[in-house]
Formats: sequence, structure tokens, C-alpha cells
Amino acid sequence: MQESIKYLLDETRLPQAWYNIVADLPVPPPPMIDPDTGRPVTADALLPLFPEAVIEQEFSVERDIEIPRPVRDIYRQWRPSPLHRARRLEKALDTPAKIYFKYEGVSPTGSHKPNTSVAQAFYHKESGVKRLATETGAGQWGASLAFAGSLFGLDVDIYMIRASFEQKPYRRAMMESYGARCVASPSSETVVGRGMLARKADHRGSLGLAMSEAVEVARRRDDTGYALGSVLNHVVLHQTIIGAEAIAQMEMAGDYPDIVIACTGGGANFAGMAFPFIGAQLRGGTKTRVIAVEPAACPSLSRGKYAYDFGDAGHLMPLVKMHTLGSNFVPPGFHSAGLRYHGMAPLVSHVMELGLIEARSYQQSKIFEAGILFARTEGILPAPEANHAIRGAIDEALRCRTEGKSEVILFNLCGHGHFDMQAYMDHADGKLKDLDYDEGELAKSLAALPAERVAAA
Amino acid sequence: MQESIKYLLDETRLPQAWYNIVADLPVPPPPMIDPDTGRPVTADALLPLFPEAVIEQEFSVERDIEIPRPVRDIYRQWRPSPLHRARRLEKALDTPAKIYFKYEGVSPTGSHKPNTSVAQAFYHKESGVKRLATETGAGQWGASLAFAGSLFGLDVDIYMIRASFEQKPYRRAMMESYGARCVASPSSETVVGRGMLARKADHRGSLGLAMSEAVEVARRRDDTGYALGSVLNHVVLHQTIIGAEAIAQMEMAGDYPDIVIACTGGGANFAGMAFPFIGAQLRGGTKTRVIAVEPAACPSLSRGKYAYDFGDAGHLMPLVKMHTLGSNFVPPGFHSAGLRYHGMAPLVSHVMELGLIEARSYQQSKIFEAGILFARTEGILPAPEANHAIRGAIDEALRCRTEGKSEVILFNLCGHGHFDMQAYMDHADGKLKDLDYDEGELAKSLAALPAERVAAA
Repeated sequence: MQESIKYLLDETRLPQAWYNIVADLPVPPPPMIDPDTGRPVTADALLPLFPEAVIEQEFSVERDIEIPRPVRDIYRQWRPSPLHRARRLEKALDTPAKIYFKYEGVSPTGSHKPNTSVAQAFYHKESGVKRLATETGAGQWGASLAFAGSLFGLDVDIYMIRASFEQKPYRRAMMESYGARCVASPSSETVVGRGMLARKADHRGSLGLAMSEAVEVARRRDDTGYALGSVLNHVVLHQTIIGAEAIAQMEMAGDYPDIVIACTGGGANFAGMAFPFIGAQLRGGTKTRVIAVEPAACPSLSRGKYAYDFGDAGHLMPLVKMHTLGSNFVPPGFHSAGLRYHGMAPLVSHVMELGLIEARSYQQSKIFEAGILFARTEGILPAPEANHAIRGAIDEALRCRTEGKSEVILFNLCGHGHFDMQAYMDHADGKLKDLDYDEGELAKSLAALPAERVAAA
Repeated sequence: MQESIKYLLDETRLPQAWYNIVADLPVPPPPMIDPDTGRPVTADALLPLFPEAVIEQEFSVERDIEIPRPVRDIYRQWRPSPLHRARRLEKALDTPAKIYFKYEGVSPTGSHKPNTSVAQAFYHKESGVKRLATETGAGQWGASLAFAGSLFGLDVDIYMIRASFEQKPYRRAMMESYGARCVASPSSETVVGRGMLARKADHRGSLGLAMSEAVEVARRRDDTGYALGSVLNHVVLHQTIIGAEAIAQMEMAGDYPDIVIACTGGGANFAGMAFPFIGAQLRGGTKTRVIAVEPAACPSLSRGKYAYDFGDAGHLMPLVKMHTLGSNFVPPGFHSAGLRYHGMAPLVSHVMELGLIEARSYQQSKIFEAGILFARTEGILPAPEANHAIRGAIDEALRCRTEGKSEVILFNLCGHGHFDMQAYMDHADGKLKDLDYDEGELAKSLAALPAERVAAA
């Protein structure tokens, strides 16, 4: 029998702790800023939205943060997730490089998102709330929070962008199967929603708007908490279980990655894979090239400005320092809804500024070509978001072929594409145009950054 | 940490052989009959459709049939599949029973089907054909053969029931992503298709008709072979890898099943799980209750006649002795396309006659209730077909609660429901009516069984 394809960790080897990169950084990350005072946000200010344990994690400088046992027990329904050696892809590329991928699509909802939805639902449940409110675009995050809510007996209200609510009934059906309530956003349930509908009765919705609706509800109701799917430090933290497992699995495989690659939208998926490797390097371990891959149509790391900005379009959340295209930036329509975010996790932006990672962007035709090659060699049909990482890995493997180098490449396959078949149909039909954002719009959006509000910081 | 949830076998423990129950049966199964001669079919008669190695398996009386290394190498992309202990479901049911399930949804196409599509594609490739033809209803089998074809460099032509072709574009997109060609059936590519279109230009298609189109193409073209997704002995054989793995995994768990449950349409999924356990019993091992669960709207095992019948509606295939509702039986429309078959695998029918298994049927509202409870406790959203097995397992677990017995229940979760969300939506909207077949139609269909053709057998 040839060498292994899958490297599996037994449940007993599920990591006991999440990894907090802040503990190992040579320079601490800039603080969140209260837009009203211009001063760093205090923990108290976040209490209407998040449970204390989550806020503690948001500000923590401890390296290892223990994963509570009830969270580990749920992780064990699908974790540790497998690490694969992509031997068939290597052969198709005729490359001397070794390609490994971590597969997060084995989770119940098919992506990495439950790594944090389960943790957040647990802490909210412990804090005594009865209900969670959140927003969702394509529905990947909404489905994952709905799943987590069902396991902890929490009601979940999901404000789903109206356009997606109508175009993606199957994602909605998944959320409802887990018992969640889906509401088309803008809705008449909130002040911000009603205001928007009064101005434009057929408003199609946006992620920023849905976020503002969920935040408003969580602020107003004592029994309701808010949960976010990416960007913030605690979300990034929960995702580090990916990289922590991958380190153990690469050891099983007898290799260590020269290059680590992941796609990045809000940044948590990328950071979840990359930070444990960057941390090992910061503590004196092997140097690894780390590549963040983003869509050319929404390239916050590659083209954004590193500045304080709002994480949400409704400007209800604190200011964070990040690579941003501006909170009013509207990217052109492309088929990776999970990567349609104007900013980047502050921690990811910070390690970018420290020179610890590289950024790269691709047009969508290129990433779907990569996804199809992957499906036809490795079998798994990837999510469009994951195709960005695959494209990055393929290009590095081809470089290795040209240079005759047998480097070890590890990428994160963050989810399957079972709910993204329309994108594959459009690709097959030649309808997937490469899309560029409008340079003038970007300049306008960047000029509107709220620089004056952080004068006191 | 509480006891294990998942029991994982390392790739090195992938079974080396499929299990052929014929070797252990006290009475040999009745032979296939040539409808023209009334005599047992010879291997030669099947050569226009199947490769020699497959035909050999169809007639084999050997117990262990070695899995070729290239097939094992592809199985290892996802196999051995996990065995789970459904601890959260047990708790929700407050049952002393232990519930285990084998999860086949981890395969690239999301069901057990690739266990045989990969094997069949391998043997066809070895025999020198360049192309495979097959039929598909909902698309689960078509996607699995498309996947297998892509790995072996075979072209795959899939005749897909026209109604499904139009209603299930996402399944079609999956097949096409693997490089297969999908054709709406009836098509103008075959004599049988053109004939049907001439009579009825807007014909919606049927599985039997699509099967006849694929068989016609495979017979006509030397470079084309035919592959079938269930029913025949060799298909059943390939699926026994499920039960073979499950036996090793139950041993890891320190338990042995008192009851084994699987859903049954054509029978291969059921047999794949059940036969290795029945075989162990026949060789003097522990007795296990084995329950086949089928839809009330298409109850071939529960209500069919054990008689010789055609496996395909087009009557191009040999006669097989099985529990059948008649090859012209049209079940009412229900949401488990994989169980819409008028007959039953001859080997499953035979073990039923030998008293080695029980049959049970459920209405669709009951099985979707079970599926929703499963999703909300175990996380995985099951395929409608799999919900039949879950319903059976839940009912046995509830009986155990009533009787105060801690029996060990094992069922086969044959696939996920990611491409079946319309069914879940209809269930949630209260649109899923319980459906009964028409008793008069069934009587008529059974009266038309071709009994006279097997007089010479």
C-alpha cells in the first residue's frame, strides 16, 4: 500500500486550548476605539452584546486559553478534522512539491464556522441569555450558529440579507431545520430596518445592515446576545484549533510546511490555520511563508488602507485598526460571499504590518479553474472561498516544478461547495466574468475613513 | 473526557476484501433468467454491458473477493468511514439503548454510492472501454459515477430523468463539474428515447426508461460499458465494505449490535451494511436482528410478490427473482428518490425468504420528523433515504426504553441531505403528505408479472 492519504487524530488528541497569538507578538496590536470618545474601548462597553468570558478573550494576552469541556465535547462530533496529502493533485501538476490540506468541510454545516459558533453559543448559554441574534449573507455563518444554538437549547434569530433570503432558500431551509428563525433584512423588527424600508421599500439588504439589525436587537433585549462569525479577536482565537491540529498532523506525516496558505475574508479562517504556525516561528521555531489569498474584487489586505474603521456598515460597533476598503465600499458581485468584507481581522492586519504574512489576490475564473481541477483529482467539490486557497497552493506547486524544489505546502480547505452549485454552473456556462472594483469608488470610500475620531487614541 | 463519539479506523485497516454472502447461505439464490429462452443467463450474455471481472463477481460463490489495489487507493480518499456513537440522540430519547451509526456521507459525493462506482469504473477501464453510460434519477448515482470516471479518465454519459434534469440543476452541475455529460431522458440519442418522444414529445422520463437508454448505448457501442447503482450481486458485493468496516469499529467500541438497521431501495446500501453481520451469524457467530426500512409508498419487501421480474422498465435486462411491485408499478411522488424502485436486490429478497431479515415501512412525515431530531442532536442533516434508517433506530430505542433494555443498535447513515433541502422545506411547510400507493394499481402491476417466461427455469 502506498503512503497515507489521510492523517487522522484520535479524539483524545483534540487540542485542550486555543492559541492566542497576542502573547507571542513583538508589538501589541492597536486597541479598539470607542468612536464617541476616541479612547480605547473598555470591557464594560461590550457587555450588552457579549458574555464576559468572550470579552475576556477579546482582550486577553495569555498564550493558551483552555477550551471548555462542553465545547470540546461538541467539537468531537467532527473534530479533529482530517489532514489529507493531495497525492492525486500533485501527480496532475507533475510537481516535486508535497501538497497537504486540512479539510474543514467535515463539520455538520460544511465549513470551519462551527469552531466559533459552538464556543460562542456555549459562553452565551453560560451567561444566561435565552436567544442569540446574528446576521448572515450566504448563510454559512447563520447555519453554523443555528446548529450551535440547537445543541445548547438557545433560540437563534438570523437576519439574512433579503437578496440571499430569496435566492438561497436551501441555506435558509438548513438554518430552519436546526430550529432557527430566519428574517429577511432589512426587516420591520428593528428601528434601523424600519428606517431603511421607509426610505426604500424594496431594499435588497447588505451584510452591514443585517449586522446592525442583529446588534440592535441584542442591545435592546436583556435575554438576547450577539454572535459574530469573523473579524474579532475571540473569533480568530476559536479558529486556531485548525492550526493546532494541523501541527500535530504534519508531525504524523513527518513533514513541516514551508508554506501555509488560506483564503481570507474577515480573516478568522486564515488566522485559524496560520497563527499557530506563525506563533511557533515567533517562539524560535522554523520559518514558514504564510500566504493570505483574497478575491481580486475585494482585496482589503492587498489594496486596503491600514487605518481605523468601522467593522459594520451601520457604525454601531467600535472602531478597529485594520486593512480596510472603507465601510461603505461595495464590491462587485462575485461568487464567494464569504469573502465579501470591506475590512480584515485586526490581528491579521497587524501581523501583515509586522511582515509575518504575504497577501495575494485572484480573479474568480482562475479560482474556479483550480476548484474544478481539485474536484477531478481529489474528489471533494470545494466552496468558492476555499478555491482561493487551492489556487494559491497550485501556483506555488507549479513554481516548485519550475524551480525543481520539493517544498511542503499546506493549505486550509475551509469548506465544501454543496450549497454553491450555481457558481459552478455559471463557471461551466462561461458566465463568470472577472470583476474589478471601481478605482474611483475605492478612493472615495477610503477618503471617508473616520480618521478624526481616533485623534485621542 | 467522556467516552468516544467517533470510532476511526486508520487507512491501513481498510478491508482487503469484499464479502460475498452467497458463500455462507444455506440455500443458493435463484439464477438470473434470460427472458427469451427461459433459461439461466450465461456470463457471455452479459458481456456487451459489463467487464468480465464484474460478471465473474455476479456469479461468484467465493466468500472473500479481493479489492484491487487501485480501488483501495481511491477508497482511502475517504474510507474507512467513521462509526459514531449517537450519544446526544440517546440522551434526547432518554433510552438505555446504545445507538451507533456508520456515516457514509463523508464520501466526495455524499453517499455510499462511490463504493461501487469506483470499483465498476476500475474494472471497465481495465477492460479497455473509453466511456460509461448510466441512468440517474435524483442524481446521487450519476454524481458518483461521474466522480469515479474522472479519476480513471473515462468519459461518462448520464441519462437523467427529464423531470429531475430540469428540477435538480445543482445535482447536474455536480456531475458536470466532474466532467460527465448529462442528457435529459428520454433523449433523441437512442432508439428507445426517440420512440418515446415520438409518442409523447413532452415525456417527463422515468428511471426504467433512462436505464433502457443507457443499456442501448452500451450495447451498441464497443467503446462503452454500462454501470448500475444497485440491485445486482456485484453492486451489493462492493457495498459490503461498509459492514466489514463496521464490524472492526464495533469491536473498537467494545460492543456488538443486537440490531442492525438500514434503509432499502434497490437494496445495495442495506446489504452493504447487513450482509457481513448476517454472514458472521451464519458462520456460527452472534445472532443479530436485521431490519430493512423502506418507504410506505414503495414497499417492495413488505408488500411485493417474490417472483421473477424485470429489473428495468424497458425489459432489456434479464429476469431476476425478487420482491417486486411489478416493473410497471409507479409509486406516488415522495421525497426519497433513492428508494423509488419497484423491486429489490435478488440477494436481499433471498435472505428475506430465508427468514434472516425483517422488513418495515414508514410514511414520509414520520421519517422527516426523525431526520430533524437527528440533525438537532447529532448535527448531521441526513438524506431523506437515510431518515428511514434513523426512524427505525429511534423506534427500536424507544422500545428499549419501554422495556428497560439496553440493546445495542447500529444503523447505516447512507448520506447527507445537502442536495435535498427542498424536501426539508416541504416538511417544514407542512406540505409533506403521507402517500399511499393505489391498491388497484398494485394488483394490476403484480398480475402482469412475466411468470410464463420462466417456465423452463
